Amino acid sequence: MTREIIISLDAMGGDYAPQIVIEGASIARERLLDVKFIIFGDETKIAPLVTKYPLLKENCEIRHTDKTVSAEAKPGQALRRGRTSSMGLAIQSVKDGEAIAAVSAGNTGALMAMGKFMLKTMPGIDRPAMTSLLPTSRGESIMLDLGANVECSEENLVQFAIMGAAFARTVLGLSKPSVALLNVGVEELKGNEVIKNADRMLRDANLPMNYTGFTEGHGLANGYVDVVVTDGFTGNVALKTAEGTARMIAGMLKDALEDSIFSKIGYLFAKPALMGLKNHLDPNNHNGAVFMGLNGLVIKSHGSASAPGFASAIGVAADMAAHDLLGKISEDLKLFESHPEDESDEEKADAAVLSVAGEEIKDKVI
Amino acid sequence: MTREIIISLDAMGGDYAPQIVIEGASIARERLLDVKFIIFGDETKIAPLVTKYPLLKENCEIRHTDKTVSAEAKPGQALRRGRTSSMGLAIQSVKDGEAIAAVSAGNTGALMAMGKFMLKTMPGIDRPAMTSLLPTSRGESIMLDLGANVECSEENLVQFAIMGAAFARTVLGLSKPSVALLNVGVEELKGNEVIKNADRMLRDANLPMNYTGFTEGHGLANGYVDVVVTDGFTGNVALKTAEGTARMIAGMLKDALEDSIFSKIGYLFAKPALMGLKNHLDPNNHNGAVFMGLNGLVIKSHGSASAPGFASAIGVAADMAAHDLLGKISEDLKLFESHPEDESDEEKADAAVLSVAGEEIKDKVI
Repeated sequence: MTREIIISLDAMGGDYAPQIVIEGASIARERLLDVKFIIFGDETKIAPLVTKYPLLKENCEIRHTDKTVSAEAKPGQALRRGRTSSMGLAIQSVKDGEAIAAVSAGNTGALMAMGKFMLKTMPGIDRPAMTSLLPTSRGESIMLDLGANVECSEENLVQFAIMGAAFARTVLGLSKPSVALLNVGVEELKGNEVIKNADRMLRDANLPMNYTGFTEGHGLANGYVDVVVTDGFTGNVALKTAEGTARMIAGMLKDALEDSIFSKIGYLFAKPALMGLKNHLDPNNHNGAVFMGLNGLVIKSHGSASAPGFASAIGVAADMAAHDLLGKISEDLKLFESHPEDESDEEKADAAVLSVAGEEIKDKVI
Repeated sequence: MTREIIISLDAMGGDYAPQIVIEGASIARERLLDVKFIIFGDETKIAPLVTKYPLLKENCEIRHTDKTVSAEAKPGQALRRGRTSSMGLAIQSVKDGEAIAAVSAGNTGALMAMGKFMLKTMPGIDRPAMTSLLPTSRGESIMLDLGANVECSEENLVQFAIMGAAFARTVLGLSKPSVALLNVGVEELKGNEVIKNADRMLRDANLPMNYTGFTEGHGLANGYVDVVVTDGFTGNVALKTAEGTARMIAGMLKDALEDSIFSKIGYLFAKPALMGLKNHLDPNNHNGAVFMGLNGLVIKSHGSASAPGFASAIGVAADMAAHDLLGKISEDLKLFESHPEDESDEEKADAAVLSVAGEEIKDKVI
């Protein structure tokens, strides 16, 4: 008997909701036999879509709500008014233990704020981090933080390293993943004080990872390290720079191959090989960023993901759940003995996520 | 009668010195008829190389020194011992007014430290910034800072914007270049305090640029803005991420096109079109980062640049000189009236560049 994995879906989030959410869930369900879904959103829109996919229909429950979090909503608005939205209810179901993970393609800031406030951070984690797989020359690597925290302390970076390594052990199946800090050079003297202190703390710690020191921007694509750790500002810029560069080259390649009758003929011959490359770089195939460090799994899909892309994000959620990511992080945090004990100060962390999310909320909202 | 432009070359810097420096100078001289060179370095190595290129030989003067700055030298070492090295003498010749620019493919930290200490920053500029052209979908854009300053204030970012716009007016020939700040989102609420303050200052200023607000990592490759401004940490990571991504895709493309007999045939047909793409992305064709904000022009070539790449860096130097980059920056700084007057505190700036350069030097060395 396989263990059942229940995943909550925000059916109303993203550019093509609820269509791609339902279609994505159907694709995911065909791949993942032990997964069931709770689908939150407008039942009048969702039910007719679900009916098209009999296997999905048998393995899901629709829960109606009229409320949605708009793409423009600020995190504070979402917190104040979004608790009964499709996004809020999906997270609540994780909190209540009904579902093991929530997946949404909706408003990132709102998802982070609600995830943080409703689920709270794990003991020993001050700040959650947005984490994702990225394509490299050698396969896939993990990068965090991708934008949850625009400013980070050395303790934050160390905690990210621990979470990233646990992610690598879970998703990439590595017993001792290599982990590096993103910096402007590989020498110990390079970088700012925060990064130098984090480097020292990671060197001194005894963790189930192979800490390799600093890596530079080139290190993201070459895949020499399994986990690249950075603050959310740098990580967000690096991620989008890599995506933008890949898109630029793909566009130019397309233009070049349509440039003349000769290049068009060339393209026809080379097409199967080029399709493999396209698949490897397609963000849809690496979709699903985990908002890691919470007492529950929250996975963010790209807002513009395709149905197979949304299915990838569901796959990430299922992987995390099946391999007990949260348990692994907890174990590793215990190993990090130099970790100070005063870090579960929730108010401080709450204030942090709010300023991060781009809006300062002075009142306590929960 | 054309105006003569004299450029100093550090013949001993870079991975393939002095060979590619001399060959690069020869290529540049064929393109740039009004350029002459002062070449600093080991005459016994340089003279036989120069002899191969009669046009270059007629238009250069070799000045001998035994001393070189090694690739491993720390900035402080370079400052203490490198003044009579090929790099130091090239910069000194700019200070003395013999040459209008110095070009080196040597140690970046050493070049920045010596440039900063020997030439000093321009009035109104606290920190110099490493600046370069990058390939985009629409041509080329300018990014700064690429790594001279790991931490920046809002005033630094505003000064970078002014310098970047002057660079765009000079090299891209734009009368009112578009300028944006690199951030994690385009909304005014996003980012840290420094970047939000810089945004406000640029909005309020009356400068010969079209300040467009924030751009994200995608904005580097899509080329929608002419000048992308960021701190040296983020800029360095973004630049190397873009380069690494381009290299990854090029490698995968090569593998894909060698994958089967069909794809090989395809490659033969498509080769001319693909070569155009390759040329556009080749870092050698965008080589030459300007260390901008000093009372003199210092241009850094990639250490591993080819001879045509080194020639590109010389081309950047000649462009800057011919179009009076430093004059344009001075004019624009005067327009920025809200600029505080206390910023030419040299000691503060000196201390800053040293900590930046990756080494703290407590003693005053000059």
